[in-house]
Amino acid sequence: MPNFPELKNDLFLRAARGEVTERTPVWMMRQAGRYLPEYQSVRADHPFFEVVNTPELASEVTIQPIDRFPLDAAIIFSDILVIPQALGLEVQMVSGKGPHFPSPLKTPDALNRLDPSVADTVLQPVYDAVTQTRIDLNGRVPLIGFAGAPWTLMAYMIEGGGSKSYRNARRWLYEHPEASHELLDTLASLIADYLIRKVEAGAQALQIFDSWAGLLGPGLYRTFGIPYLESIVGAVKDAHPNVPFIAFAKGAPYALPALATAGYDALSLDWTMSPETVRGEVATDIVLQGNLDPCALYGSPDDIRRQVQHMLAAFGPHNHIANLGHGMHPDHDPAHAGVFIDAVHELSETMRAA
Amino acid sequence: MPNFPELKNDLFLRAARGEVTERTPVWMMRQAGRYLPEYQSVRADHPFFEVVNTPELASEVTIQPIDRFPLDAAIIFSDILVIPQALGLEVQMVSGKGPHFPSPLKTPDALNRLDPSVADTVLQPVYDAVTQTRIDLNGRVPLIGFAGAPWTLMAYMIEGGGSKSYRNARRWLYEHPEASHELLDTLASLIADYLIRKVEAGAQALQIFDSWAGLLGPGLYRTFGIPYLESIVGAVKDAHPNVPFIAFAKGAPYALPALATAGYDALSLDWTMSPETVRGEVATDIVLQGNLDPCALYGSPDDIRRQVQHMLAAFGPHNHIANLGHGMHPDHDPAHAGVFIDAVHELSETMRAA
Repeated sequence: MPNFPELKNDLFLRAARGEVTERTPVWMMRQAGRYLPEYQSVRADHPFFEVVNTPELASEVTIQPIDRFPLDAAIIFSDILVIPQALGLEVQMVSGKGPHFPSPLKTPDALNRLDPSVADTVLQPVYDAVTQTRIDLNGRVPLIGFAGAPWTLMAYMIEGGGSKSYRNARRWLYEHPEASHELLDTLASLIADYLIRKVEAGAQALQIFDSWAGLLGPGLYRTFGIPYLESIVGAVKDAHPNVPFIAFAKGAPYALPALATAGYDALSLDWTMSPETVRGEVATDIVLQGNLDPCALYGSPDDIRRQVQHMLAAFGPHNHIANLGHGMHPDHDPAHAGVFIDAVHELSETMRAA
Repeated sequence: MPNFPELKNDLFLRAARGEVTERTPVWMMRQAGRYLPEYQSVRADHPFFEVVNTPELASEVTIQPIDRFPLDAAIIFSDILVIPQALGLEVQMVSGKGPHFPSPLKTPDALNRLDPSVADTVLQPVYDAVTQTRIDLNGRVPLIGFAGAPWTLMAYMIEGGGSKSYRNARRWLYEHPEASHELLDTLASLIADYLIRKVEAGAQALQIFDSWAGLLGPGLYRTFGIPYLESIVGAVKDAHPNVPFIAFAKGAPYALPALATAGYDALSLDWTMSPETVRGEVATDIVLQGNLDPCALYGSPDDIRRQVQHMLAAFGPHNHIANLGHGMHPDHDPAHAGVFIDAVHELSETMRAA
């Protein structure tokens, strides 16, 4: 591992490890992105995956929100779909429409098309981007690495892009359960290896995004979700036991008790989950992350502060990392993101003093 | 009210009222629809809203699944978006894409465009379709009438069609809370009146669909969802206390305890909700409806029977109406729907004998 600059703000890492902190750390999912004019100006000259795969550009856009706001963590600018790319599938980012797979997996036969031999070549630029960003951050805040969860990646690989119900992917689970397990197993191994190598490249914490967990329900998630999230956290923790690892199972409150015992340090809640309810269902030493409705940032500054106060009270002062319940939207006003971040800082200090 | 034919199969109505029944009644959301070749053949000659607004055609497609399967209820073929149409908004059904509003509500000013004076004219064909269908059903099974919930209709009216996050509609709730309440109130009054008149036209039970309830989370739903669902059930029950009324708050487990005390007889669960969990949170006399994953119908007949057995056991033999957790999909095999229906009949009788 390179000799990285010393970390000056370790608040996020201490909170993620369950330590008592002087205030609540805060970052925002998709904090580097289209709502920032400085990001738009980079993207004007460079397509999405060029930014992901060019360490200097990835570092630049990762650090943009750190320059603008007093955030407590950076998250590497990348995409969960680099893993399908690392298995040889083509993924295009269509402006205004999202990801598109020209050749999705239609039937189990298509699993033969997956070619893990290209993984190292495809993923090396991501590792290089992590290292470059860690150097460029110069210890200002810790750097989070991330990956998509096996089921979520499977959903994209079969559906070929965004979908309301991911019906074709869910169909596989019922119609081709063995092939589904084969695909999920391939993905889980690659993801674990990818996250381990991201840590070795400089990531100081990890988050796994199961964006479509909420489509499965408790039964299917127990069979096709949890086992793979267990194997990933097991492998990563074997290699790097002290790197905080956060799981985000969007829309799946039923997933949280099992994830809490699987080995994850923290669970990220979407905006529809009740912090009090989740806290009652998981061990007290599990850190919870979240969960302001991103749409709350459309409200007035006073309303945002009121919502932050409400959120902080619901989570309690400790074992909490403040965040949104999902990513920033392209039409968000950066000033309102600033109000959110400042409110977490101020109100969480006041709360501890009370 | 016309003198309708005598009802021969009242199993669904008895179960919906909480009576002990000899077997579990079953129907399927979107049981009249594209998966049926006989429906496709009607649609080949008639656009979607022509079918909705032509009593003979609406009756024909409503009864198609009753002719094919031993279902215990029919649901009038219609659409939740007739209510926005009744307020003067244009709604087109775009083949393969779903509903489209050429002029959605962009800002609160647009509320002035709503014109409830057209409601009677727009909705009369739906009432006529209900009456015609009730006559044509000849008492074989009861006829269910339905409406969309205020929030779900508001979401479509602002977004202008389907959307992954209904971000613009959710933005209104934060940015224009008063205008949001005004719109929801207008919708709730019209919906209550519409459902009352559907009963007077011949509907023997009602269901309200809050398809996007799951996007709000507990706080927003308490403010912008529940009060309007309470006022609707209150008005309908004042007029027709003995007509069973089912609420379906898709994706919103947090909504169920409040809906259970609001006056609804039954709650419909989507496929991600656990019947055991919900049963623990609502009174024992509330009837639960659901909730097989529609994608389970892609499995083999043996798998479908196994899933039905599992579902029946999870709900228990009484206070349950068997259904899917969401609507039928266009690529479903009608034969597999038949397996589902037969399995409910057979296994629910066996269960009671045991």
